[in-house]
This record gives sequence, structure tokens and C-alpha cells, in this order.
Amino acid sequence: MEYARPPLRISRRCPLPLITIDDVHAAARTIAGRVRHTPVLTADQLKTPLSDGVEVSLKLELLQVTGSFKARGATNRLMHLEPAQLERGIVAASGGNHGIATARAGFTAGVPTTIYLPDNATPAKIEKLKQWGADVRIVGSVWHEANAAALAHVAETGAAYFHPFADPYVVAGQGTVGLEILDQVPDVDVVLVAMGGGGLISGVATALLALRPKARVIGIEAEGCPVLLRALEAGENIGLDRVTTSVATMACARTEDSIFEIVRDTVDAIVLVSDDEMRAAARWLWFEMGLAADLSGAAAIAALREGRVRLSPGEKVCAIVCGAGPDALTT
Amino acid sequence: MEYARPPLRISRRCPLPLITIDDVHAAARTIAGRVRHTPVLTADQLKTPLSDGVEVSLKLELLQVTGSFKARGATNRLMHLEPAQLERGIVAASGGNHGIATARAGFTAGVPTTIYLPDNATPAKIEKLKQWGADVRIVGSVWHEANAAALAHVAETGAAYFHPFADPYVVAGQGTVGLEILDQVPDVDVVLVAMGGGGLISGVATALLALRPKARVIGIEAEGCPVLLRALEAGENIGLDRVTTSVATMACARTEDSIFEIVRDTVDAIVLVSDDEMRAAARWLWFEMGLAADLSGAAAIAALREGRVRLSPGEKVCAIVCGAGPDALTT
Repeated sequence: MEYARPPLRISRRCPLPLITIDDVHAAARTIAGRVRHTPVLTADQLKTPLSDGVEVSLKLELLQVTGSFKARGATNRLMHLEPAQLERGIVAASGGNHGIATARAGFTAGVPTTIYLPDNATPAKIEKLKQWGADVRIVGSVWHEANAAALAHVAETGAAYFHPFADPYVVAGQGTVGLEILDQVPDVDVVLVAMGGGGLISGVATALLALRPKARVIGIEAEGCPVLLRALEAGENIGLDRVTTSVATMACARTEDSIFEIVRDTVDAIVLVSDDEMRAAARWLWFEMGLAADLSGAAAIAALREGRVRLSPGEKVCAIVCGAGPDALTT
Repeated sequence: MEYARPPLRISRRCPLPLITIDDVHAAARTIAGRVRHTPVLTADQLKTPLSDGVEVSLKLELLQVTGSFKARGATNRLMHLEPAQLERGIVAASGGNHGIATARAGFTAGVPTTIYLPDNATPAKIEKLKQWGADVRIVGSVWHEANAAALAHVAETGAAYFHPFADPYVVAGQGTVGLEILDQVPDVDVVLVAMGGGGLISGVATALLALRPKARVIGIEAEGCPVLLRALEAGENIGLDRVTTSVATMACARTEDSIFEIVRDTVDAIVLVSDDEMRAAARWLWFEMGLAADLSGAAAIAALREGRVRLSPGEKVCAIVCGAGPDALTT
């Protein structure tokens, strides 16, 4: 509650380096019928309101196949592989939602999929990976060690590598969340998006900036991993020396330059929330809405509950509840 | 998996004794803006399909305020109390979703609410009752002991008693789920409804029979509590000597005659599922859909997964996922 950093405002510049709105539209056509169109639910009838005088709707990406928006990007990536490449299998490094989404992409394509994980991955995620038929390999104790093994595997076998965020097809796929929000909440004023590497917000902000430029896109980072906030303050893609958040899906010590540039050019502000604030927000989502979100899925709600987002009366806010998890129910 | 009782078909007769479709329409007007309009989500992009050749949609009543459809009936009951009666407070006996919905009704009305529970109520439910401001009293070890204390409280104080199902305002309120389904899935062929005392299915079947008589309404009871199935077989409202299900929200040893009559006259069939089948269905809902349902919320899915419901290719099925719970995540 002590943390109250004023949000950083970033000027919007063009052109966009990694993807354009056309790529997001193309992704929507490509993945239609291969992922779920998730509902939007108004957060009304609350015991403890989120924010006075504003209407908040929730984009329920935690109900997406595989339990998160990551299925969109992974499916779009899959559909753009050459058959020869596909036949050599699919590889990713992820102990989280991207790994599960990649495993599902491999499952639907009927090709072998290998997911490298660090040894701190949770048993629940490993179980889901196995249910989608992935070959699960535990290497190292942090993501970049598992990722090095994944890249070595790719070099050796020629398998297709699915990057968790810095891939135009992945970013364009995640951007389809933005298109659906514009369809479901056409007069939206503010969209709130949790950030890890920045893939989701890059896609969503690309869609919003092109189709409803008056709407603001606000990113939420973990206090223990303000990687894009610090990079934007520095004006270059500096990484962090230390990541202290326990929220694995929001822990990225350095993003890719292409993502840094999209975020710089399309995102209006970044605010921070603590791990405890995300835990409290996850409990709020469970008590008030019956939703079992993971901590990144609760990050946008945490930002609203803690008053981190500057809002004017009457504004329409859409918070992306981006992933499912047992966090509110098992602690 | 061994249990495969052929479903019982019941003839539809009129008139309806407890409520009519007019009461359901009136309830919809009364509770509009006081409960949530819950989304319907198509169960597609599945790893393990529910049933070949049929389209299944899920009515997400687990996202209703208080975590279940019970808020509808309790709110409609509340809105029909005389001010003088309301002033003396509200009382119910329930260790489950009805208690929480009643506590919320009292909270919104700003009057003292007392909920009597048997000593087997879970700490999670007690916590939710307290969050809604209820005075929680633990009496006895089964529902009817707690209920006797609730009725004594009512006799002594003149407080308003909220029956969990056998009350025309409660049944009409639950029936609004049926109206919303007809709006959201207008060409629905089959609606699946979990049964405890029979309040939800009575309201929903009243709505469907009036507005789309060609659609079938199928009830799902726990194998360990086939109270309405046995009553319908006997042709009278006999109770059960023994209730062996561990699913508290589906444990009712005898329903009220008024509910027996509505179910007899409006429901097409009743099928049974075991507690283990409901647990497996709750895990399916979590893995496939990101939904944290309680076991009664998973009952309709269990009936589909186990092939208990006779369906024709091309039929549109709507399963009511009627309550939220941690069952798939904590076992």
C-alpha cells in the first residue's frame, strides 16, 4: 500500500516495428475456431467495489483453452510453421502458461512437443503439460537455463522453437484479445493488462492504438520485476539485476528490443503492484466473482483495488483476467 | 462408471401448483440490477469432448454473486418482504450456497441476518457467511437440527425465514436462469440441472415448459440421494431413509410436496451420477475450461461425460454450472 509511484506516460510514436494491426486481424482469422472466444463479464453486484464511479468489465481469458491467453499466440505461431519444420517437432522453455499453450499446439498438430522447465516449476503445471502430451524435461533452476537447453535441442534437431513473447506471430495472436474487447466493450476507455515479457500488452496495445486511439492501455508489472518501467525511464531496453517477485508469469529480467519498442510506442502508462496485492486481488476475484485466477490474472484487479490507475468518473475500464490458477483457494 | 440406470421419463401435466411462468417473469423484473446476468460459454476446443455430435454450452451460474444461482431466489424473496417483517431480521438454515445468498440479501437490505449451520459446515463457507456480515450459529450435526433452531428463532423473534427451495419467490427467482438460457441459447434442445431439494429445476423447467416446450429439462441427482427419482417412481413424495452422498448441496432426504408436484409435471427425466463422477467432472471443468465449480456445479458435466443423458446428433445442450467451489483444486 505504501508504493504509489506516479504512472509514467509514454508518447505514442509510429511506425510499429514488430507487428501492425493487419497482423492482428490476420491472426484473428487464422486462430478462429482453434481457440475460444472468451466472455466479458461486468464486475457488478460487488460487496467491495473496485473503483468509485467507473464501470469495470472483466475479459475472462482465464477461461481460454489451456487456462490463459497464451493459447492464442501459440496457435497463431503453429499455423505459420512450414510442414517440414513441424515434422521435426516443437520446443519451448516455460514452466508456466506458455508451455501449456505450446504443448496444446503440438497436441492439436499431432507432433512431438518438448517443454523445458526449471526445477522450480509447480507440480500442477507439470501435470497439465503431461496431460497435453508434452515431453517434459527439467533443466536448471531458472528460466534462462531451461531455455538454453531448449535452444540446444532446436539446434540439434531442427525442431520449431516457440518463443514466449518476442515473435510476431505470438504477439499478433495475443493481440486478438484486444480485437475481442473492442467488439464486446466498444466504448472502452481504459484497458488494463498484466505484463511479463510484454507480449500480451504489445498485441493488445497495437490493436487499441489502431482502432480506438482515444482508449488508454495501461500495463501492470510486479513491484519485484519492473523491467519495462525501468527500461522506459532509461529510454533503452536495460534489464534488471534482480527479480524479486514470486509471480513466475511476471518475472522477466530483460525483454527483447522489439517488445521494448512496441511498448514504448503504444502503451500509455505502467503501474506496479506487489505480490501481496495480487494475492489479495485473487481472493477478491474468488469471493466476488467466483473466478479462480492466477496471480498475474489478478494483477489488473490489484491495480484497481489499490488505486494505482488514474481514472475519471464515468470511464469504462476493461481488465484482462489473463490466467487461471488456484492461488486464492489454496493459500 | 458401472451405474447405468435408464432415465425415467415423466409425463407433463398441468396446472402447475406452486408458480407459473408469470411468476418467473415477475422475478426477472424484480431482481434485474440486483443480481448478475451470467454469461454462457460454448464448451469447445476440448481435449476430451463431452459428447459426440452435440453442441454443449455452459451457463456460468458459478460466476453469479455469492458463487451460485441461490442469489436469485434469495433476492426475489427479500424484495417481497413487508418492511415490518424485514425489520426483525432474516433467518435461514444452510451450511451452503443458500446460506451465503441469504446472508448477502440481509447485507444488501442492511438488516441483521442469522444463519444456522450444522457442525459439518466447511470453514470456507463459514468464512464467506461472515464476510457477508451474517451472525453464524452452529447447531446440531445435520441440516434439520440446524433448521429446527432456525424455526425456533423465527417463532421467538418474528424474523423472516428464507426456505432454501420450497418458497414460490425462491423458485421463481431460480427460474430466471431458464429465461436467460432461452435468451442466450434460443434453440436449446436439452437443459441439464443439478438437483438438491429441487428449487432450481422447478423454476427452470417452469420457464422452459412455457416458452420452449419442445426442449427437454433433465435433472441430475447424486446416486447417494436419489430423492426425486424414487418419489417419481413411487408416484408420491416419499423420502429417503438414507442419504449417502458427500455432496451437501445435493443432499435432501425429502423434498416438499409442492416441489415434488412441479418436478413431476415439468421435468423430462432424472439421471444419477456418483460423487466420484462429480469429482472427475470438476477436474474436467478446471482442466478444460478454467472453471472452479463445486461438485453440484459439476453434476451436469458428470452426466454428459458418463453418457447418462440420451442425446441425438446435432442437439444443443445447455448445462447449468450452478456453483463455485475449490473441489477440483484442493484434492
